[in-house]
Amino acid sequence: MDKYEAVIKLLMEAVKAESGTDEFRIPVGVSNRHVHLSQEDLDALFGQGYELTKMKELSQPGQYACKETVTVCGPKGAIEKVRILGPVRKQTQVEVLAADCFKLGKKSEPKMSGELAGTAGITLVGPKGSVQTKEGLIIAQRHIHMTPQDAVKFGVHDGQTVSIQTEGIRGGIFQHTAIRVTDTSSLECHLDTEEANAMGLGSSSTVTIVK
Amino acid sequence: MDKYEAVIKLLMEAVKAESGTDEFRIPVGVSNRHVHLSQEDLDALFGQGYELTKMKELSQPGQYACKETVTVCGPKGAIEKVRILGPVRKQTQVEVLAADCFKLGKKSEPKMSGELAGTAGITLVGPKGSVQTKEGLIIAQRHIHMTPQDAVKFGVHDGQTVSIQTEGIRGGIFQHTAIRVTDTSSLECHLDTEEANAMGLGSSSTVTIVK
Repeated sequence: MDKYEAVIKLLMEAVKAESGTDEFRIPVGVSNRHVHLSQEDLDALFGQGYELTKMKELSQPGQYACKETVTVCGPKGAIEKVRILGPVRKQTQVEVLAADCFKLGKKSEPKMSGELAGTAGITLVGPKGSVQTKEGLIIAQRHIHMTPQDAVKFGVHDGQTVSIQTEGIRGGIFQHTAIRVTDTSSLECHLDTEEANAMGLGSSSTVTIVK
Repeated sequence: MDKYEAVIKLLMEAVKAESGTDEFRIPVGVSNRHVHLSQEDLDALFGQGYELTKMKELSQPGQYACKETVTVCGPKGAIEKVRILGPVRKQTQVEVLAADCFKLGKKSEPKMSGELAGTAGITLVGPKGSVQTKEGLIIAQRHIHMTPQDAVKFGVHDGQTVSIQTEGIRGGIFQHTAIRVTDTSSLECHLDTEEANAMGLGSSSTVTIVK
């Protein structure tokens, strides 16, 4: 190896150390506002016994975006064409951006999926009717999906929160990023569009965990 | 001072050190999308010799929100009622959110105010006509306005970039926050609504500088 090659090798190592090795980079998934429906609410909005139409598989196995959308309505405003994600769930959950809360005139806090106790209710309108949920309006808390094998590799565990780092002109660190471990997860860091835009991230970006 | 008081004092000092002392906290100003116009473009949009109507003073001395708004139009979509900020400037500058770029169908990069060379142009529509700017569409790079006295206090200088820290469930660190020093500045950290929402910040929030 001549001098030139040695310098290049050192440079490449420095760059790699700076950006985190590829192996430890986590792909980013950017979530826009969306709705998960219970079968009962799906029936009320689209008709008795309605079945959702799968449009596109999502990165997490078994999850998919549907052809169907609803209008989300609050006391101050409405947001049309909010995508429904399938399959149906035990309880309806409406995940919005912080900016949407101002538009709707509803208060919400960052919560993990399923942590709906005490959250605000919201009105959904579909082609066959409307529902007023008692709770379930959340801003999704940022989180990382991974398998138990990933958790061992990254040295983290389910329920833990970590900080994630990003680079670029809008780079920085997001604290309180929850770790979600399941056997069927696909490794992905879920941020909403405001978080992704604030850090200059898109769906082809990656982040690294810093502790 | 008894033992109880001594413990409380130590605790309070620890809390204060953790959150930054009040003296070193910087108020946050949240900017939504807005437009600065040249007199020439103001004339084209609102009529020859038009004068902007001051609606509300802004925190930076001499700056104000105007009664007038324009529609910002790109190849893929339009955004109505975008606020004009006064007074008129040498060159028209349109500051949008990253999400707006998707809606408009225009690419933009974080830039400091006035750094318009090479940025995209955009169409503005007013009550008396429209203009197609050659450049000037930017996403505002986050920055902190301060006086020379503030700069001495914080140990920073004009043109430097620093990291800023925030607390709370969406807390974190934004890197590459530019320092802007002028004699007439009011101490304030300017973030756009996506940045503020991503970090859980509002107009009554504060941040601290971390180096």
